[in-house]
This record gives sequence, C-alpha cells and structure tokens, in this order.
Amino acid sequence: MEQPRRIALLGGGQLGRMFIENALRYDAEVHVLDPDLACPCAWLAHRFTQGRFDDRDTVLRFAADADVVGIEIEHVSTEALEELERQGKTVIPSSATLRTIQDKGLQKNFYVKHGIPTAPYALIGNASELSEHADLLPAFLKTRSGGYDGKGVVPIRSAADIPDGFDGPYVLEKRVPIAKELAVIAVRGNNGSTVVYDPVEMVFDPDLNLVDVLLAPARCEPEVIERAKALAIRVGEAFGSPGIHAVEMFLTPENELLVNETAPRAHNSGHFTIEACTSSQFDQLLRAYMGWPMGHVAMHGEAAMVNLVGEGGSGTPVLLGIREILKSPGTFIHLYGKEKTRPGRKMGHVTVVAPSREAVDRAVAICKAHVKVVPMEPIEQSTGMGPSRKKHTT
Amino acid sequence: MEQPRRIALLGGGQLGRMFIENALRYDAEVHVLDPDLACPCAWLAHRFTQGRFDDRDTVLRFAADADVVGIEIEHVSTEALEELERQGKTVIPSSATLRTIQDKGLQKNFYVKHGIPTAPYALIGNASELSEHADLLPAFLKTRSGGYDGKGVVPIRSAADIPDGFDGPYVLEKRVPIAKELAVIAVRGNNGSTVVYDPVEMVFDPDLNLVDVLLAPARCEPEVIERAKALAIRVGEAFGSPGIHAVEMFLTPENELLVNETAPRAHNSGHFTIEACTSSQFDQLLRAYMGWPMGHVAMHGEAAMVNLVGEGGSGTPVLLGIREILKSPGTFIHLYGKEKTRPGRKMGHVTVVAPSREAVDRAVAICKAHVKVVPMEPIEQSTGMGPSRKKHTT
Repeated sequence: MEQPRRIALLGGGQLGRMFIENALRYDAEVHVLDPDLACPCAWLAHRFTQGRFDDRDTVLRFAADADVVGIEIEHVSTEALEELERQGKTVIPSSATLRTIQDKGLQKNFYVKHGIPTAPYALIGNASELSEHADLLPAFLKTRSGGYDGKGVVPIRSAADIPDGFDGPYVLEKRVPIAKELAVIAVRGNNGSTVVYDPVEMVFDPDLNLVDVLLAPARCEPEVIERAKALAIRVGEAFGSPGIHAVEMFLTPENELLVNETAPRAHNSGHFTIEACTSSQFDQLLRAYMGWPMGHVAMHGEAAMVNLVGEGGSGTPVLLGIREILKSPGTFIHLYGKEKTRPGRKMGHVTVVAPSREAVDRAVAICKAHVKVVPMEPIEQSTGMGPSRKKHTT
Repeated sequence: MEQPRRIALLGGGQLGRMFIENALRYDAEVHVLDPDLACPCAWLAHRFTQGRFDDRDTVLRFAADADVVGIEIEHVSTEALEELERQGKTVIPSSATLRTIQDKGLQKNFYVKHGIPTAPYALIGNASELSEHADLLPAFLKTRSGGYDGKGVVPIRSAADIPDGFDGPYVLEKRVPIAKELAVIAVRGNNGSTVVYDPVEMVFDPDLNLVDVLLAPARCEPEVIERAKALAIRVGEAFGSPGIHAVEMFLTPENELLVNETAPRAHNSGHFTIEACTSSQFDQLLRAYMGWPMGHVAMHGEAAMVNLVGEGGSGTPVLLGIREILKSPGTFIHLYGKEKTRPGRKMGHVTVVAPSREAVDRAVAICKAHVKVVPMEPIEQSTGMGPSRKKHTT
C-alpha cells in the first residue's frame, strides 16, 4: 500500500504558493520554512515554520519528519540537504547539484566539463586580474555566489566600471552577441525519465532593460526549438538530479545556443504552463517529489506571460485593469498575496493562451496598457487587493 | 479604482474547495460557512465560520461583511439570501432562482411555464392521489424538497412501491425511455453574457445503477450537442440569475431532449473542465462573482472524469493505484481532503484529457481496475492520505 509523502519546502514565496495551489488538488501535505511570517505561502502551507532556510540546524529541525525536501529558492543550506540525504530522504534538487549551481564559477566549469556550450569566461579573484583577460572584454562581471534575479551582475568594459563594494571572487564572462534569450524547462522524474516544455522567449523592454513579456513557444525556427529542448535535457542529465532544470540560454546571431545559467527549481519562465499546458511545471515537480510518472507538456495554443511588478511606490497593493485584461479571450491573472508592493517587486503575472500569435499579441498590448500594481492611495479605506492574513472563527 | 470583493460561500465541501483552489490564483478572499469543522474547505478559507447555512440568522451574521454571497449546496436559507439581496449584496444564484430549484414541484412548473421540455409529471400531496394519474405510471416519485444526490427519488409502478416514511408532497414523473443522460454547464456573467461547455455524458454502471464515468464531449451527433448547449443556455436565461446552471437532461431514443433538473452551482459533471478547458467551471464562477468577463470554454481534447467513492468500509482514507493511473498520459488525481471515508462517499475524482476517445477509454479502464479509496487498515501507523488539520509553528 502506497504511503503518503510529506513534502518540506525551503522558501515560501510565489513559487511555493503556485506549487501548493496545484498540490492541493492531490491533497498533498506541504510544510514550508521561510523567515517571513507574511510570505505568500504562510497560511497556505499545511504547516508553516518561521525560520531561516540558510541555517543548517533550522532546516534539519524543520525537515525532520518529512519524506521529501524541496526548494523554491537557491540560497538554502546545502549542508542541511547533505545531511537529509544521508538520512535517506528524497532531496530535490540534490545537494551536489545545488552546490554547483550556487557558485556561478563552479556552474560554468560544470558546463565546460560536460561539453555544454556556454559563453567564454574566466574565474578571477579580484579586479587586478582583469588585465590578464583583455580578450574577454567587454564582459559581464558576476559575483560567484549570492547573486539573484539580476543582482550580482554588472556589465564592464574595464576595471573602472566595477562599482564600489562589488567584491569577488568573480566570473568574468565575455559579452557575446545575442539574438534572443530563451529559457527551457526540463523536468526529470525520480526514475530518470525527462519531459521538456517548449522554449520560452524572453522579450526585453528596450528602455528599461527588463524582461517585459515571455512568449511560448519562442519565435524561432523549428530546428532551433528542437535543439534548445535537446540542450535542456542534456543539462538535466548532466546534473543528474530529479526535479526541474530551468535552463536559460542565449541564441547568437549565428543560431548557436549557449547556456547562461540553470535554476534547479520552478522558474518564472515556466508560469505559462499553468494554463497553457495540461500538466504545469508545478504539477511535474509534485510528480517528481512523489515518485509518480511525469505528466504531459504539450501546449494548448500560443501563450504569453507578463510579470506584474510593483510601480509607483510602496504600500498595500492594488491591481488596476482587471476588467480590461479579462475581456481578452484566454487571459488569466495571478496575484501572489504579498502584503506590500514596492517598485520592481514581483506581485503577480498575467497569462494569455490563444489560438494565434496575433491574438496573444493583442492581449499582451492591452495588458501592458491597462494592468499594473500600484500602492493604494492613503485616502482609500479598503483592505487592499487580497486578504492580509487568514482568520478562523469557530 | 476597482475595489476587492469579499466572497462569502455557503457550504464547505469539495465544490467549495475546488473553487478556492482556483480563486487562490487571483488572491481572491473567500469566507466559508459550514457546520463541519473538518470539511474540505475548513483550513483553506480565508475565514472559516462553523455554523448552519440553513439558519437565517447564522447566514446573515456570516455574510455581513461580504460583497458577494455564493452557495456550494442548495439547502441554504433563502430567507437569508433575500435579506442579503435587499442589503445590496451580489447574491449568486438569486434567492428567487434557488427557491424555485429547492422545490422540485416549482422547478417542474417553471420549465413548463418557460416552454422548456421536461418529462410529463403531476404534483401530488400523498399516495392516495396516485390513482388519478395512472397514465404517468411507471414513474419516479420524488419528494418536492430535501432530496440530494439521488436521495428523495424512488421508482414506482404503484402505491405499493412507496417506502415507509417516504412522505409527500411529491412530484410524480413519468418514466420516459432514456437513450443517454447528459449534463450541460452554462455560466452567466453578471452582465447577462453566457458561456456554455460541451455536454457531458453520464455513463451508468449497469450493476450498481450509479454514475460510473462522465465523458466529455458526450458521444452524440453534432446536432444533438448543439441543441443540448442551446437548451442549457435557455434554462439559464429563464432563471435569469448570474452564475452556473448545471442542466441535467435526458436524451430519448427519438433524440428529444428533456430537462431533468438544474443545479445553480458548481457541479460534479463539470469537474473535467479543470484540466480539459482553459477556464474551468470554478474559474467562470469566480468571474461571475467578481463581475469580470467570462473565460474560454473550448476543450483541449477528449476527456473523462471518474468519481472516486469510498469502498470497503469506514475510516481514514487511503488511495490505491496512484502510480498505475498517473502512468496513463493526461491523467490527474483530485482528492478532497476528507478525514474519513465511508462506502459511497465522494472522496475525489480522476480526470483524463487525451487526444482521442480511445486513449481516454484506455485510461478509464486502468482507473477502474486500479484506483480506489479504502479505509486504512488498523495495523497501519501512517497518518493517512492527507493532512488531517493545518498546523502553524512560528
């Protein structure tokens, strides 16, 4: 008789929340550890523990009665994951995979060792070593650890461009010409079988230099699509860990694919799968955790995803433009239940699924024109766009 | 600026749970009233109130701070709904619709008044009036109120077939020849626009005389499919209330469609829409509550839904056959989080979405062979198939 498996999740942000939203269908038991009592998962978890996921002992205590340990953020204690593996728990991703990925230097070396194409680079300790690698300039200079969501990366032409306090050790990575940025999500089951979604194209806002909208499938030749999917599968096989491998890639003007970096967890570029595919990335992750067969990845149509990031200041969030965007066929809103908005914070996203790219583009244009998350005006007496905390009255 | 709307839901069973699972994506605030502290919604609701939804004052207190009042079961206080309408709240379905539907006699009269085809019937007070309606025999005798899920209905050939304690007033309904039983879900938005899903065919187990599997779309001629959808829309228009109208119909051997009854709420026959359609019945209901435009109803493929009802006794539930069924492409499990199983209790369901009817049929056969919910054996020390109650550790 199959026994239930208890999942301990390190991190309680929106990725965890969307994971739980799907896991609820299966009545799976999900425990969450996060330092923030007001995080998006706090009241949705079957058990929520407030604490640091980068502290070995806190993680070990939290996961003591779990069967499966997962992450929704990279910056967790790998020492704890190693010990949990020794205890015989299912840990996804493996501690070895996470150790490699946490250090961008080790991650680049890993790609080279496994014959996975990546942009030329050098590992350097400090700015004085730049002069030995003039051939790599202009470059991106990346701190080897601690970077997240674009932080920890600066474009440089010379040592003079390095900001104060931006300390090494670094990855110095040659700026290669980029035709498109792609992301491909491959998911490995516990038995080694792998499924892979259609590649996503990240479209950047030329003014803000931020990812503006994600299109799935990417607007590429079928041959490139297939090559990108095969490359993501290779990356997943090289790491060898079960679970999600979200592989970010550059497509060069010569149609070469170079792996930028891999996230061993649910990823922003896979949110379109919730409505555009029968099994979402979160559904696949649950299946991997539970040792179940993988689900289907086929898309129902063309899709786009627009991140809703806070604008116009900080405060209790209000979503504008709901009615305008939901008038477009096949549009959906996701809000992550964060109590406060601030400029640049990811507050939610909009997904569009439609039969044609033109219909998707029309909906995206409406979304960009009307939908935004802003702080509530002080004069408003409402309680905001969502409930602040769960309350029980019995 | 659009203000958030707080939803007060009367009833906390699996229909409410699946509604909340979808509403969480939008961070909508859902409060739930149910007498059972261990009901499937209890810990998922933003606020859970233990109490009777058929008690006027309890409902009025519960819904006092809500903007929208909805139901997930018919047997709620219509007096309370009327008062809430007078207070200016959005009540879905309307109290008038629910009053008509709660009384099967009024419901039949309503169909006749609106020219909606239904099986011949008479309203009678007691068994002695049967002799005046010999032309309707053999018949189904239904209690006018209080029936649910097949309860409150007996097939009779004469007064001698009426069980003790099965008291009137009754609907006496002629048994018409039935080729198929269909259900069609139409959803009206707040602005009167209506969307309608493909009809579902209810396939009965010939031995147990229970609905065994639901197939979508129904295996009927396209002309019948279109007529069934048009009929469901007409029923929704006749009631005039926003929200879901789940219309159960008989298809006669002469291809005539007769409305059996209508549920003004999310319905078992619409569960396939969660995975088989981009907007599920629960998503549409949320849109109706919020006054948002309706979503898409197109199907991604052929679908089936198999109810998982308790077998083999009472106790803590265990689900058997998970791995076997998830091996079939496009299969999904839903478990409702009920603490105890008992024979015949709806504990969950399996959905299949596949490109062909043959693939769906194969998965359904595997499901019926392997998947069942049984009570845990007393020797087992596990905590069951799901968490019993939510716990917080902070």
